[in-house]
Amino acid sequence: MLTAAVCGDIFASPSVDAVLAGILAVTGPAGCLLVVKNYTGDRLNFGLAAERARAFGRKVSMVVVDDDIALPDLPQSRGVAGTLFVHKIAGALAEQGADLETVTQVAARVIAGTHSIGMSLDTCTVPGSPKEQRIPEGMAELGLGIHGEAGVEQIQYDGARQAIDAVADKLAPSMGDGRYVALLNNLGGVSVLEMSVLAAELVKSRIGQRIDLMVGPAAMMTSLAMRGFSVSVLKVGAEEAALLSAPCAMAAWPGCVKLAPETILPLPDGLAPIKALPSAHDGTRAFLTACCDIMIAAEGDLNALDAKSGDGDTGSTLAGASRALLTAMDSLPLADHTQLYRAIGQELSQTMGGSSGVLLAIFFAAAGDAASAGMPMRLALMAGLERMQEIGGAKPGDRTMIDALLPALMALETGLQAAAQAARSGANHTATLTRANAGRASYINAEQLQGHVDPGAEAVARLFEHLAA
Amino acid sequence: MLTAAVCGDIFASPSVDAVLAGILAVTGPAGCLLVVKNYTGDRLNFGLAAERARAFGRKVSMVVVDDDIALPDLPQSRGVAGTLFVHKIAGALAEQGADLETVTQVAARVIAGTHSIGMSLDTCTVPGSPKEQRIPEGMAELGLGIHGEAGVEQIQYDGARQAIDAVADKLAPSMGDGRYVALLNNLGGVSVLEMSVLAAELVKSRIGQRIDLMVGPAAMMTSLAMRGFSVSVLKVGAEEAALLSAPCAMAAWPGCVKLAPETILPLPDGLAPIKALPSAHDGTRAFLTACCDIMIAAEGDLNALDAKSGDGDTGSTLAGASRALLTAMDSLPLADHTQLYRAIGQELSQTMGGSSGVLLAIFFAAAGDAASAGMPMRLALMAGLERMQEIGGAKPGDRTMIDALLPALMALETGLQAAAQAARSGANHTATLTRANAGRASYINAEQLQGHVDPGAEAVARLFEHLAA
Repeated sequence: MLTAAVCGDIFASPSVDAVLAGILAVTGPAGCLLVVKNYTGDRLNFGLAAERARAFGRKVSMVVVDDDIALPDLPQSRGVAGTLFVHKIAGALAEQGADLETVTQVAARVIAGTHSIGMSLDTCTVPGSPKEQRIPEGMAELGLGIHGEAGVEQIQYDGARQAIDAVADKLAPSMGDGRYVALLNNLGGVSVLEMSVLAAELVKSRIGQRIDLMVGPAAMMTSLAMRGFSVSVLKVGAEEAALLSAPCAMAAWPGCVKLAPETILPLPDGLAPIKALPSAHDGTRAFLTACCDIMIAAEGDLNALDAKSGDGDTGSTLAGASRALLTAMDSLPLADHTQLYRAIGQELSQTMGGSSGVLLAIFFAAAGDAASAGMPMRLALMAGLERMQEIGGAKPGDRTMIDALLPALMALETGLQAAAQAARSGANHTATLTRANAGRASYINAEQLQGHVDPGAEAVARLFEHLAA
Repeated sequence: MLTAAVCGDIFASPSVDAVLAGILAVTGPAGCLLVVKNYTGDRLNFGLAAERARAFGRKVSMVVVDDDIALPDLPQSRGVAGTLFVHKIAGALAEQGADLETVTQVAARVIAGTHSIGMSLDTCTVPGSPKEQRIPEGMAELGLGIHGEAGVEQIQYDGARQAIDAVADKLAPSMGDGRYVALLNNLGGVSVLEMSVLAAELVKSRIGQRIDLMVGPAAMMTSLAMRGFSVSVLKVGAEEAALLSAPCAMAAWPGCVKLAPETILPLPDGLAPIKALPSAHDGTRAFLTACCDIMIAAEGDLNALDAKSGDGDTGSTLAGASRALLTAMDSLPLADHTQLYRAIGQELSQTMGGSSGVLLAIFFAAAGDAASAGMPMRLALMAGLERMQEIGGAKPGDRTMIDALLPALMALETGLQAAAQAARSGANHTATLTRANAGRASYINAEQLQGHVDPGAEAVARLFEHLAA
């Protein structure tokens, strides 16, 4: 990659003296190639520094990168993340011992073939300056600069696919036949997860079929913590591909990988679940459907409660499992209640993430075992609860769903109405418990728990209340 | 590092079946070590999956990482970014051919010696959920979890040094004698620049002297795009140091570097500026001071104007140069006006970033040349302006400072009052120019320029207006 980088103040060119000092510090008899991005200040300062370095007797050449295609009518295009192709290819070539003239020529060829464009959901925050609120909620800016310069146009933002499509539409006309390398750059503030989604969309986009090699996604040329990304493309032959893939000690260079279709292995024998035979039962179907609908309706409320004490996903976890159960309804042994417990347990263990998924799976599996041993429903559910406490380690008073479920199952002997009341009072009681000894809520402090009902207990209470209503 | 990773939904554990499928997909005769972070769900699901894998005849062992020191009273500490030490050391050891038992023992030893704590300025945004506004402006949360769990305490936030000090104060009591490796982790949304500032502060902190090796700064264990960081420490002997430094193909692993004091090279001969002899002149001093004060007072306004058309730093650049000039006042040849132009040019070229710095340096240098050839002040300044246009490439009408400076210098023949009026009307005219052909404003489109005065022209107008007032 580079032997030296010369930094200016944030978003400003370094001074001529700083550039000159940098050149003089690293330039040996082989000479020095300056890789400059096309901004007036950089061109001026690096150009003058190169003149002065030559006056000091140093061999200096300079290339100016102008890969940005955001402003097609501009006499001078800016240099953006495509500059990384120049750094890597020229750097690897120099490392192999090529002379300054050859390295400069190849760098110029890479520049001529590189095209980039960026998109962002937000402006960046310059330290010490108030944030400029330029991009409204729901909009994205296409073709913005790496120093926070405004983009060429604002477009409606509608998710990763449409963002990549907009960028691909801009890049496609500049791409000819042949095979390409794409560089997917994080402008600084996009999460690893979102960048991966963008990478997947890029491969599926209209230019995806022409991309053989990928650099990133990674934060390679950032605009502080800007919530945006850029895509750069370069046509590659065997020589460029080899130079891009040459080993390099820089931690910031994410490497250049050959794209290959993912391999999906079959599930190992015995892991594919043994399904009970489906059977129909209108009453059971109606009951199960009602339970699932209650959980789906409670999704937002339960997430909000969980955000106070955990990671805010209890509602989504339960609603997701309920949706999966509704989908699986036709394949369930609805007429065979003993088998049904187990089938629900298996369904939950496959579709529900989080500890609640495993614990509910254990609950239903154990209840199924008890039911098949001839226990009546209430006692079978009590047996499931006992097993769940055993494995999960939570006791009554620990601020979990048990605080609602245990009193409800006990009161169920008297009827559904009593069970609903017991569940509600047990759930409400969790808001007074300031110490959680199990589950995620145990990681946070007492004050933050005070006054908030545990979301698992709330889910149980809502279930019984709606069933009793 | 790892052979497989098993993902659940965002912030939720993967299901038992998913973990089991992962184990069965990659486990050979040598067996498999599960590295699990200490959360109830993960412990349960990985534990059950390990049991089932053993029933399939696979050799499986499991370690649970609990490096978080945020909650000292908690019976079970969470696993956070210190897990990376376990991945790297166990991974390198396995790569060297160590058996499962040895790898498991070393992993357990690393876990026992690893301590971590995180801090964040903001909560993370979970896709599809509204953002929880938990942390007020100016506050930071100490000891938060990697799934967005609330921290243990909220503290006043007062910059990078104090943030690192708070973290170092928590870590120090758990650190004994001996040499340490520190891992500086970006929780996802912190800029590269800010992470570097944190790294510099960490080295200077109360635990800095004990740190020999550093991993990062890098985004290694993120909480989506959370604007926070964590520090993990581990006492290292020669064996751990070698394993941490062993080559590794994972792009996400930033390497482990030995900390060494930076080397500062002397400026090469001839680069150190040749200074004119200082001399005193009360009138010139007062005039220069007034000019500098005007520029400093205009900083905010000029930045705001530049944010409409460029990168928002014109005001800061000019104010910074003015402050530097004020500081350098005693060393300037105030009594020798010919020398003074050049001295100001030299000062500006050293202290002022950006193209305006170089162009103003060229302006003053050329004016100095003209003055030393006997030209009166106004004509010397005109000669400077001509040279600046020649090198910078901007013409009148191109939306630059020239649009105010040229009419001002021409009107100066009639007096300062006329010059001020000409500068103002020239500056105001730039707001009607919708096409910029030079400088940063040329990168953005016409609509965005419309109605905004060019910040460079505005600076010139203000200077003349205040001098004339």
